[in-house]
Amino acid sequence: MATIVFYSVNKTAHSAARRCLTSPLKRLASAGESVSRLASTHSRSVPLLPGTRWFSRGTGVRFMSHGTAGWSGNTRRGALALSGAAAVTAAAAVAGFLANTDHFQRAEMATRVPRAAKETGEEADIPQRCRGFMSPPVTDISVLQGNKDEMRTKMEMLIMETQADFCKALEKVDGGTFRVDRWKRKEGGGGISCVMQDGKVFEKAGVNVSVVFGNLTEEAAKQMRSRGKVLKGKDGKLPFVAMGVSSVIHPKNPHIPTVHFNYRYFEIEEEDGTKQWWFGGGTDLTPVYIDKEDAFHFHKTLKEACDKHHPQHYPDFKKWCDRYFYVRHRGETRGIGGIFFDDLDSPNQEEVFSFVKSCARTVVPCYLPIVYKHLNDSFSDEEKDWQQVRRGRYVEFNLVYDRGVKFGLATPGSRIESILMSLPLTARWEYMHEPAKGTREAEMLDALRNPKDWV
Amino acid sequence: MATIVFYSVNKTAHSAARRCLTSPLKRLASAGESVSRLASTHSRSVPLLPGTRWFSRGTGVRFMSHGTAGWSGNTRRGALALSGAAAVTAAAAVAGFLANTDHFQRAEMATRVPRAAKETGEEADIPQRCRGFMSPPVTDISVLQGNKDEMRTKMEMLIMETQADFCKALEKVDGGTFRVDRWKRKEGGGGISCVMQDGKVFEKAGVNVSVVFGNLTEEAAKQMRSRGKVLKGKDGKLPFVAMGVSSVIHPKNPHIPTVHFNYRYFEIEEEDGTKQWWFGGGTDLTPVYIDKEDAFHFHKTLKEACDKHHPQHYPDFKKWCDRYFYVRHRGETRGIGGIFFDDLDSPNQEEVFSFVKSCARTVVPCYLPIVYKHLNDSFSDEEKDWQQVRRGRYVEFNLVYDRGVKFGLATPGSRIESILMSLPLTARWEYMHEPAKGTREAEMLDALRNPKDWV
Repeated sequence: MATIVFYSVNKTAHSAARRCLTSPLKRLASAGESVSRLASTHSRSVPLLPGTRWFSRGTGVRFMSHGTAGWSGNTRRGALALSGAAAVTAAAAVAGFLANTDHFQRAEMATRVPRAAKETGEEADIPQRCRGFMSPPVTDISVLQGNKDEMRTKMEMLIMETQADFCKALEKVDGGTFRVDRWKRKEGGGGISCVMQDGKVFEKAGVNVSVVFGNLTEEAAKQMRSRGKVLKGKDGKLPFVAMGVSSVIHPKNPHIPTVHFNYRYFEIEEEDGTKQWWFGGGTDLTPVYIDKEDAFHFHKTLKEACDKHHPQHYPDFKKWCDRYFYVRHRGETRGIGGIFFDDLDSPNQEEVFSFVKSCARTVVPCYLPIVYKHLNDSFSDEEKDWQQVRRGRYVEFNLVYDRGVKFGLATPGSRIESILMSLPLTARWEYMHEPAKGTREAEMLDALRNPKDWV
Repeated sequence: MATIVFYSVNKTAHSAARRCLTSPLKRLASAGESVSRLASTHSRSVPLLPGTRWFSRGTGVRFMSHGTAGWSGNTRRGALALSGAAAVTAAAAVAGFLANTDHFQRAEMATRVPRAAKETGEEADIPQRCRGFMSPPVTDISVLQGNKDEMRTKMEMLIMETQADFCKALEKVDGGTFRVDRWKRKEGGGGISCVMQDGKVFEKAGVNVSVVFGNLTEEAAKQMRSRGKVLKGKDGKLPFVAMGVSSVIHPKNPHIPTVHFNYRYFEIEEEDGTKQWWFGGGTDLTPVYIDKEDAFHFHKTLKEACDKHHPQHYPDFKKWCDRYFYVRHRGETRGIGGIFFDDLDSPNQEEVFSFVKSCARTVVPCYLPIVYKHLNDSFSDEEKDWQQVRRGRYVEFNLVYDRGVKFGLATPGSRIESILMSLPLTARWEYMHEPAKGTREAEMLDALRNPKDWV
């Protein structure tokens, strides 16, 4: 199954209002060199739809089809054209500017990234809000505009906005740029994968959006809900929409923790036309060494977001997180947790969405202050080795237990590279590795074997 | 679940005929330093049972209990004492000596390792044959001696001998020594794990023997057979014995392929006392680059071993191997195959055992010539990177698809470190890695996507 990559977009666009760019990029033979870095030397703004203009954002966009579908025969095809770059503040400069302030003060200043939603006003019209995204949304802007009060539109806008906010915050601290890949799913829908690999600060950073739809079998529909509710379809088939944003960030410095988050929404239509819907998600931290201040900051920020909606959310979802991210064969949690929830469908759609929105908007303030705090921490070879061993455990969880990964790998037509972008660039397995008593490595293991309350 | 490690063995041994050594080794805090290397500075021979003497074999032995079982309350406990070392020919010296001969000639000379069975004569008594092993067998020597005509005894001797032959051949080429861990399974049985990590030639080499017994549920028994035969137990319980030798060798040089083999035997007793038995196994090669001469040598050696028993064995088991070691989500086989079979129970026990013995004895002549051939091959950073990417795929297969690993991780009381010793020391995941057309990396991928006939 070859993945066809288009660096230049078909010039015979379907609408006169849509214009295409021929990117001068050639296919890179070596994977070591990032397309986005090359792309960033070409700065342009591109008219896309009447009334909207795509501005350069330090992002090279790659167009690709997945599987055998290709882009032909769809009015949106060939219309998604952008490339270019803006100067991105280098991490070193940021660090210098912030050198004389307190850690979390610094971090707060540094994380005041103009947010896509804030920038344009939450009530701004959809084309205007889309301007700040890493790429046009998966669904046609005109379709979103026409269904702007539907939950699937609101959620798609939220996940696109979350991707953009987080990517921009990471680009700012790293100095690098995300490579942006659009991909299509033959069976319906597609996604936008943003990956920065081997940056200054980040070993591998992936932020993925997907919006897929089609028909599910009753068995598959059952598997999609963690509580396994039985759903009745017409002739055994259930039309569905599934969308989400998910991200894993593996930094180079072992004193900067790995973060993961995922916020998702499902809709399934039953035989009688009833729409079942639910949300899921969570944000969790995987440090290599325990820093109690970081753990407190991370959990407290999540707790504040949860408390705005229900006093039981944080305690319940904190426990769920510890339970879910558990590497059973090791008797260890993957990290120091955060929140995790699934199948959330009450009290009503608007309120659950509002809660999910609060969570998604908490990603940058949860994580970026911790990144800035440790940006210049020195580290030894032994600390780097311990990070690599912990990365190995991360791989074990993701490949052996993670429901999303298992579901993705088993689903025909999945985009494997987007599913496995959560794996670190490098990992290590040492036989019988056990840190000596009293070391910081043993302290870390203890926290994984006995989950703690950090707030 | 702490693993308790005994470096010194209880001096109050149960039998006067059994003497113990107190090893001066202290527990090493850092996992980076191998116990066996320290152990190798102490060379002694130890009387073990009347009539047997354990000679030093360049092997440091570590005693350990697994889980909460410990070693107390068993007559064998405390009796297994050996430590010491012999000078092991350094890889460099071997390479120098062999420099003027042809590749496979060289290799053949170098692989004329005195074999445990040959050394003592196949018909020699059991205590004498055990002398050449990496450690005393899992089952008491006196028990083996008393049941020497039973298949479970013959197979335990074969797997111990295979472990010893292979480990010695690897030690000879590497110059390093295996760390030997004995472990016990609370529910019955135990094993001997031999691991060499970060050697001169081998990044990680693991050769594991296990002999476990107890009761299986009918469901678990069904899962153990790949064809899922239904077995009837007394009150739903089936007494079983499972034993095998398995090994994965990851060399440092990307021009030396990874090898894996596994030979195993199962016995299950049904309600009416009938004994069901079957054998399984295989040997397969995972190169980083295609070398047609190596592939031919490896497959031809396997084919010759198979042809001695049945003309259909090689073609059937070659295909089964390609089918089994398939990373479905990548559309690639794990390597260039070899042979794989399971549930082999005809025409009769002796003949199947004889076939398995031929296969097990083919491991050294299959692999070592290839190691010697490439011992001094130079390699670039790019070739090392490609090796690391292939290692990542190896991890994907082992954690996502391998039946043995899945079964092991899901089985309470399994020794996780022995199951996961198959993982490489280091691995890499690059987003969207795809070698350029016409490169040697692309040639490798093509062979994985389209399995070839090498003989």
